Amino acid sequence: MEQNAKATIHYAGNETLIGISPSGHALAMGIGSDRDTAATPLELLMIAVGGCTAVDVISILQKKRQIVTDYRVEVSGERREERPRSFTKLFVHHIVRGRGVSPEAVESAIKLSDEKYCSVADTVKPKAEVITSFEVIEEDESV
Amino acid sequence: MEQNAKATIHYAGNETLIGISPSGHALAMGIGSDRDTAATPLELLMIAVGGCTAVDVISILQKKRQIVTDYRVEVSGERREERPRSFTKLFVHHIVRGRGVSPEAVESAIKLSDEKYCSVADTVKPKAEVITSFEVIEEDESV
Repeated sequence: MEQNAKATIHYAGNETLIGISPSGHALAMGIGSDRDTAATPLELLMIAVGGCTAVDVISILQKKRQIVTDYRVEVSGERREERPRSFTKLFVHHIVRGRGVSPEAVESAIKLSDEKYCSVADTVKPKAEVITSFEVIEEDESV
Repeated sequence: MEQNAKATIHYAGNETLIGISPSGHALAMGIGSDRDTAATPLELLMIAVGGCTAVDVISILQKKRQIVTDYRVEVSGERREERPRSFTKLFVHHIVRGRGVSPEAVESAIKLSDEKYCSVADTVKPKAEVITSFEVIEEDESV
């Protein structure tokens, strides 16, 4: 992303916003009303945190030649009771499925992302504490 | 959003991730490669910050009975040179078009969002300083 890259958010009526990323990709956002048209900005933040660390971890596991057949990240959080209702904790749980995947490799990839690479997670710290965890599931070769 | 709401990010291959928000809306994310399939997680963070304050500001201006005909927010940022390349500054610029819109009403709406309501902006502080600005454009009634 270049230094002066700009995201634009346009109010599109009908309780919907259109966000356009600096790279030119548009996506809809909802405003959190009953109508529930699209992910809300706060939900996007959770997805951004999980997506950022997912990019790092999958890339590191590929470099470590781990055989990963499925990978997902689950993000949940705790927020302040008072306004603004910012996140105070974000729980980032990695689920790695594969063949003979080394738990140590997964742990080290998550640690590298959390401490060194993930720009999004680092931006939300220290307001939100980011708590990581993981599980490794052996792919059943008979399936 | 309920307390135990969970966002899921699934690696979908082809340099793409699918994020599913706690409310059940899916969106694609790119990993920032040359292929450039979708907004990256870091871009989503910028959109989330702008979208969050946009929701507040448009709602406050509606309550103040301001006649707004178009509204958008532009978000740019500065990041650390070192890893992790988190944001140190986020510039959030509001562009309000309308008929006789009061600059004081806009300024006060932005201040309320920034200081009291916007959960996303508050989550990125103090790591990122959030710098707001705005312009009010009179709608040309002859158009």
